[in-house]
Amino acid sequence: MPSEFEIIRRFFDRPTKHTLVGIGDDCALLRPDAGLELAVTTDMLVEGRHFLPGAEPEALGHKALAVNLSDLAAVGATPRWATLALALPAADERWLAAFARGFFALAERYGVDLVGGDTTRGPLLTISITALGEVPAGVAMYRASARPGDDIWVSGELGGAALALAHPELAELAPRLHRPEPRVELGERLRGLARAAIDVSDGLAGDLGHILERSQVGAVVEYEKIPRPAAFERFRELERDCVLSGGDDYELLFTAAQPQRNELEALSRELKIPLSRIGSVQAGAAKLAVLDAAGEPIAHRGGFDHFAPVAGR
Amino acid sequence: MPSEFEIIRRFFDRPTKHTLVGIGDDCALLRPDAGLELAVTTDMLVEGRHFLPGAEPEALGHKALAVNLSDLAAVGATPRWATLALALPAADERWLAAFARGFFALAERYGVDLVGGDTTRGPLLTISITALGEVPAGVAMYRASARPGDDIWVSGELGGAALALAHPELAELAPRLHRPEPRVELGERLRGLARAAIDVSDGLAGDLGHILERSQVGAVVEYEKIPRPAAFERFRELERDCVLSGGDDYELLFTAAQPQRNELEALSRELKIPLSRIGSVQAGAAKLAVLDAAGEPIAHRGGFDHFAPVAGR
Repeated sequence: MPSEFEIIRRFFDRPTKHTLVGIGDDCALLRPDAGLELAVTTDMLVEGRHFLPGAEPEALGHKALAVNLSDLAAVGATPRWATLALALPAADERWLAAFARGFFALAERYGVDLVGGDTTRGPLLTISITALGEVPAGVAMYRASARPGDDIWVSGELGGAALALAHPELAELAPRLHRPEPRVELGERLRGLARAAIDVSDGLAGDLGHILERSQVGAVVEYEKIPRPAAFERFRELERDCVLSGGDDYELLFTAAQPQRNELEALSRELKIPLSRIGSVQAGAAKLAVLDAAGEPIAHRGGFDHFAPVAGR
Repeated sequence: MPSEFEIIRRFFDRPTKHTLVGIGDDCALLRPDAGLELAVTTDMLVEGRHFLPGAEPEALGHKALAVNLSDLAAVGATPRWATLALALPAADERWLAAFARGFFALAERYGVDLVGGDTTRGPLLTISITALGEVPAGVAMYRASARPGDDIWVSGELGGAALALAHPELAELAPRLHRPEPRVELGERLRGLARAAIDVSDGLAGDLGHILERSQVGAVVEYEKIPRPAAFERFRELERDCVLSGGDDYELLFTAAQPQRNELEALSRELKIPLSRIGSVQAGAAKLAVLDAAGEPIAHRGGFDHFAPVAGR
């Protein structure tokens, strides 16, 4: 069985591209570019809570990093560095090799250096990643900057990951849940175009709610305009809850002034990423109204809360 | 029971001092000082592995941050920011308040902004902290820079935390184990004075071994010169193992050229932190010889390995 230090050396100590000192010392040492701001985000994934025991390790390595890159994308930052803390029940070499394969395939695609970490034994597989990105001064997108009159846009489709969780037999949707694609390029290109942004990790209603609360505005969303997988035609009874409150899609939800419509549509064509205009920001209380085709309000529940009495994801 | 978002708001969202955007968005946004390098470190503490179930939460909040600040001190960085990921069995308000009290008392002492985090439910209390610090370009201390002829120094005393673990009734030693003091000022002041440095988290033999391996040098340490708590007079049978291989002391172990002796002794007096010269770096293979008062070698085991078949801490 490999030791803690062998695990790090064999599976996680890869050459870095823009790091002074990487893995193997007390700290990593970075030199952020002068004039840029540093975006920092942390997520923790716990076995049995965020993924099932026995989850495929290569997909897990991908997803654990993807959810952090998605947070960087939501503020428009370019991913640069990550640290990885792992608690593992055993030092299973095949598991570690597959996890590292998934992690580094995504990291290398976006030029992310793994610069540090901690590997420890624990009865429950737990993964905590901190990702660092850079963004030019003053252009990061935040939740607090939506204004009345802004359009509300979303990338890709919503509800697919939640439907894949409910119906694992839908092979075409499984990657949405297990290998979400962080919208890194889109986030970078939205700088200066979008106002407020967030990634949809806990569901549209909850995550848009965060923008509304922080920006002190309301919103109207037209349900029929929300893009969703065609597979919902066979699962109508799940559709509304998945589309409005399903988590784990990792699409970008953002607001933009109306004069940006043409440019956003051109960006959508250029990146080949669907961007849908689903509603608008309103003056007034931080409330979300979702309307059906007849203009009638649709009830919806908020986002996922890890400490809610009944888990709803 | 408070929700995930209430937990963050009530217990962890404190005013920041040098942060553009803190808790409550997809990412925190920092502006590192131009010309400084950024030091990054991550640790994960798991219930039952790094602390006992039922551990006092205020001490735990302190220690979880302290071990990261100790890593920053080992490279000479000034602590600035931290993120905190927590998996909790339940949202126990008294536990959270006490944990936050311990964490922030230490954070505020060193001007550390908590800028982000993740709170999730999990059956096993797990704490993962990433700390960020700043250090002037080119002066960080690393494991790889020890040179033959260097003196080997250590701060404080070694073995106290391991003895406290073995004998919880020794009240005067309990703080060494439960509330270690990271040597932050000492680390900052060692810039330009020390060559290689590491913090003693896994035991002197193992941690000095990391310096030797990275620097490709050997070392001789005189056992009698290693400072240790007076309490060992009553526990002679534990002394050698605790002093040479006991973990969790979080003292700084460093090498320095011989002409720095006077300045290091003056620094010790100024900071009121004992600094002991315990041996010297030798040319040759990365081996550590520990000699007793008669010059005979003392057998010692290496550092703590989380995946070793028999846990030795």
